[in-house]
Amino acid sequence: VSEALPSLAALREAVLAGDRRALAQAITLIESTRPDHALRAQELLEALLPATGGAARVGITGSPGVGKSTFIEALGLYLIQQGRKVAVLAVDPSSPVTGGSILGDKTRMERLMREANAFIRPSPSAGSLGGVAERTREAMLLCEAAGFDVVLVETVGIGQSEVAVAGMVDFFLVLLMPAGGDELQGIKKGVMELADALVVNKADGDTAALAETTRSEYAGALALIRATSASWTPVARKASASLNEGISEVWEMILEHRARLEASGELEERRHRQARAWMWTLVEQGLERAFRRDPRVTGRIEALEADVTALKTTPAAAARALLSAFQGAEEET
Amino acid sequence: VSEALPSLAALREAVLAGDRRALAQAITLIESTRPDHALRAQELLEALLPATGGAARVGITGSPGVGKSTFIEALGLYLIQQGRKVAVLAVDPSSPVTGGSILGDKTRMERLMREANAFIRPSPSAGSLGGVAERTREAMLLCEAAGFDVVLVETVGIGQSEVAVAGMVDFFLVLLMPAGGDELQGIKKGVMELADALVVNKADGDTAALAETTRSEYAGALALIRATSASWTPVARKASASLNEGISEVWEMILEHRARLEASGELEERRHRQARAWMWTLVEQGLERAFRRDPRVTGRIEALEADVTALKTTPAAAARALLSAFQGAEEET
Repeated sequence: VSEALPSLAALREAVLAGDRRALAQAITLIESTRPDHALRAQELLEALLPATGGAARVGITGSPGVGKSTFIEALGLYLIQQGRKVAVLAVDPSSPVTGGSILGDKTRMERLMREANAFIRPSPSAGSLGGVAERTREAMLLCEAAGFDVVLVETVGIGQSEVAVAGMVDFFLVLLMPAGGDELQGIKKGVMELADALVVNKADGDTAALAETTRSEYAGALALIRATSASWTPVARKASASLNEGISEVWEMILEHRARLEASGELEERRHRQARAWMWTLVEQGLERAFRRDPRVTGRIEALEADVTALKTTPAAAARALLSAFQGAEEET
Repeated sequence: VSEALPSLAALREAVLAGDRRALAQAITLIESTRPDHALRAQELLEALLPATGGAARVGITGSPGVGKSTFIEALGLYLIQQGRKVAVLAVDPSSPVTGGSILGDKTRMERLMREANAFIRPSPSAGSLGGVAERTREAMLLCEAAGFDVVLVETVGIGQSEVAVAGMVDFFLVLLMPAGGDELQGIKKGVMELADALVVNKADGDTAALAETTRSEYAGALALIRATSASWTPVARKASASLNEGISEVWEMILEHRARLEASGELEERRHRQARAWMWTLVEQGLERAFRRDPRVTGRIEALEADVTALKTTPAAAARALLSAFQGAEEET
């Protein structure tokens, strides 16, 4: 944190007033690893929580080369034309300290960055996926408190980041390029099944025909996957972000999804479920961290893993030994 | 346990000699919930571990109605003709005390049950999925020690049982019926991506043509899923268990898979990975159980979940509060 922070009350008011600089400062506070900042961040977040929840939360994933930035910029600019305020956040645990995936290349999303109603924030620069995703989720809440009514959360698909993003948004969109097969697309196992929609980008010029073939193949595959929602069946679409084609249709689709899930009560239920699931994920991570750092445990992990591998003991017996060590119980060896 | 158990040494020798009655007793010991039995079971297992690992471990899942029992019986009888010794186990946390899914209906697998080289064991009758899967995994090791060289592990797909079974076998086979779409097939999200092969059963009579359509659709879908192994690409096949068609081909496919994974070293590596992953799964389950049962935690879960849902606190703050309570730390409210 390179400058003095304003008082919490002032920061809260400024965020609520939609001040982008205050929003940026608030996110910086949340991303800080200093314990005193963590306390202040928590206080700020709790003060702002009643003002959160107002945005359409959209997750977007896609491998490098699918034109993700171009697509997000085209969608963002379209939304701003529609009078929306758009925040773009990223979950990318690989992002370097000097800038996340979004701002790493300064030429990316140049036009969107110039818009007064846009707010672009790269990935938090350090930490495990859990930590990065956690802070992105909290940054999303701050953006909502600042009046942004669309939050686009981008992920480049490192580790389990798609799962983390799908767990914080209302709509999860997988961007594809015109080409056959997940293998080529670099899509990981299970990601297709998180999708509320697949969009084949670059449906233009030389790749227009291939885009339709790809779309149709994926539409077929989607039909074989059980829908996540009773009121929405995942769809496969085409778009050309560079020609600005299909972008408004993508947004209409997101609105249609939203309308259906709101009508059925699923949207609220999904958000509640996501928040509780998030809490338990953090509990599990915390437990595992405490476990793996416990001096009574750490000294034994390697040997027990080796014994399990060498068929000297069973996984169950090894797990019991580790748990007993953690809980400080006397063992019966 | 309805009868006195022989001494551990005698039981160990009898299991190693391939005595089916001793094998059944050993599995009963493993399934027992009595603490003194648990200690003996662990001792027996560890004594037998060096004799384990010799079987081809094949997981088979499929919804009710796909003809799973008929298929397993046909495959089992074929294998016995080939001179194999075949054990059939089941992971089914819903199975009643009086018999698991396999033996619940006495007419099922009648012919296979009469074979001297077959051993059929229903699901352990009580416990959580974790416990049932755990005991099935240990029963599989006992079958290997008893000289069974093929173990078929069946699951009916309750809870996460497919994931549990896929995590204990070398080859995971998903049985389908001639029909369109996972929705119709009752296949859960993510299960298709665990499959080393999909087999459309009932490729006979009126449903022969539909079976081919189904197979071809799933073959297309499989092509869109990233392969789990560098040396094996999942395939979609057809079979008719009732006409005994395609059964030997399924076995040839399993052998081919095995040969490739053995040649590349993946088979051993996969089993090591599975054993370590199993240990960590059991650690996680144990930690979560200890956590949820901790009196300092239990009293607070409900209120904190409600606060998270009502946006009174964040998932992160709630998780921290629960973890502090568990670790007995003083809290700063």
